[in-house]
Amino acid sequence: MNWILLDDQLVKEEQVNISKEDRGYQFGDGVYEVIRIYEGDLFTGQEHIDRFYESAQKIRLVIPYTKDVLQKMVHELVEANEVINGYVYMQITRGASPRQHQFPEQGQPVLTGYTKLMERPIELMRNGVHAKFVEDVRWLRCDIKSLNLLGNVLAKQEAMENDCYEAVLHRGETVTEGSSSNVYGIKDGVIYTHPADNHILNGITRREIIAVCAELGIPFEEKAFTKEAAHTMDELFISSTTAEVLPVTVLDAQPIGDGTPGETTRRLQQAFERRLGLKESALA
Amino acid sequence: MNWILLDDQLVKEEQVNISKEDRGYQFGDGVYEVIRIYEGDLFTGQEHIDRFYESAQKIRLVIPYTKDVLQKMVHELVEANEVINGYVYMQITRGASPRQHQFPEQGQPVLTGYTKLMERPIELMRNGVHAKFVEDVRWLRCDIKSLNLLGNVLAKQEAMENDCYEAVLHRGETVTEGSSSNVYGIKDGVIYTHPADNHILNGITRREIIAVCAELGIPFEEKAFTKEAAHTMDELFISSTTAEVLPVTVLDAQPIGDGTPGETTRRLQQAFERRLGLKESALA
Repeated sequence: MNWILLDDQLVKEEQVNISKEDRGYQFGDGVYEVIRIYEGDLFTGQEHIDRFYESAQKIRLVIPYTKDVLQKMVHELVEANEVINGYVYMQITRGASPRQHQFPEQGQPVLTGYTKLMERPIELMRNGVHAKFVEDVRWLRCDIKSLNLLGNVLAKQEAMENDCYEAVLHRGETVTEGSSSNVYGIKDGVIYTHPADNHILNGITRREIIAVCAELGIPFEEKAFTKEAAHTMDELFISSTTAEVLPVTVLDAQPIGDGTPGETTRRLQQAFERRLGLKESALA
Repeated sequence: MNWILLDDQLVKEEQVNISKEDRGYQFGDGVYEVIRIYEGDLFTGQEHIDRFYESAQKIRLVIPYTKDVLQKMVHELVEANEVINGYVYMQITRGASPRQHQFPEQGQPVLTGYTKLMERPIELMRNGVHAKFVEDVRWLRCDIKSLNLLGNVLAKQEAMENDCYEAVLHRGETVTEGSSSNVYGIKDGVIYTHPADNHILNGITRREIIAVCAELGIPFEEKAFTKEAAHTMDELFISSTTAEVLPVTVLDAQPIGDGTPGETTRRLQQAFERRLGLKESALA
């Protein structure tokens, strides 16, 4: 029930032994993905695996398996652990070698993957969450889903300590994304979010939302907005693989709109949920 | 001969087992230090240990030992491994806990330390090195000696692939530091380097060089210079714990000055070497 993917093998926890000189441990030299599992199936599994390879390619880490092989391994992991609702976490690092900044001449990447059980955060989806502005001090390659997450960690911690679920990051006056989510504003029926450039992660859920908007005929603009504009949005929401679509009802202690989840956000939640193909809706 | 420091114990390599869920492995959530050992003694050991605590404090990681205890442990490690010339590497992470961005409520930091043998890079010191400009895309807390080093890794790799020893990073037009060193220019007898703010690491060797300059009466200004200015410097050099003071003779394929190590850099190297209190000089 608790198999771990280590390279291309399913092993027991006690067989996983990460080296103190793994470059993931000393440099954060690796990339990762989180894939949601609903009712035993991977949701947008292919998209996550594609992005895993893209992130790896951007840091020039060669994943020593084909996408097909990796997808098969991930499926086997999920089946072995009999996960109904949860997620797969997987990461790959440039592996263990004597510490030096440049890539090792010899060296074998290390892949680790595991599953966790998780239910959908239905209450948060219904009631919305509070968020806090935090200055975005991360590097300029946030398009890479890398293991260099200290900036995200510190931002999330600051939010949590202020009784907020998420940190809304801003680089100067410009809102970029959340510490572990994308951020969207809705004004006069149009949805705005930061373009998918080097300042944000191009979320898979974000891409799904764009598709949902096209489906519903909701205008969607990949256009950044300011901190000031965020406060005057009719609705604000965040999205992520594990949290789907969450209304932000309060930002920096000020209500967004009337301080309750907005109608367009609700429509998005429901349309997104339909894409999950669940036996039962929790939101309808 | 190859003892590892694991938390507060000296252990054998095979006893070190890093968790796949160590926050160092998944977030780069930790800090590190490298301390040089000359003729069996730690050089500026106290300064490195002080900075270790400062870095930890900046990411709000509480090191569960006093500085005195840690210093004693590091000394024991160096003695156990009978290191004459080499260095100690040590890092501390926020430890293993189920993955979430915010700090774990429970959780024990994990300290790992080990030694390596290393000789002084005398040939490089004498002949100088080549360097390459690389855009500085790192986060805005480079004052923290953290494990989020992917930007440094990619810059160093780019330099090495261009037959250069080091990447000279620049944020826009401003030279910041090297991928694993500080960078200095000398013009008309004055040494310039980026101020020790959030854009660079305040190197221990950098501090030693400032002291050396005061000793020698060489004007030293903590004032950033541009890429363009770098090319017109009389001399350029880098410094680091492991490489001491290295002349940069060629930058982006263009010679600095006459393309050989300059007189002021040589004086600094020799004065720095005197601070090491070695039995024999390699540079005089």
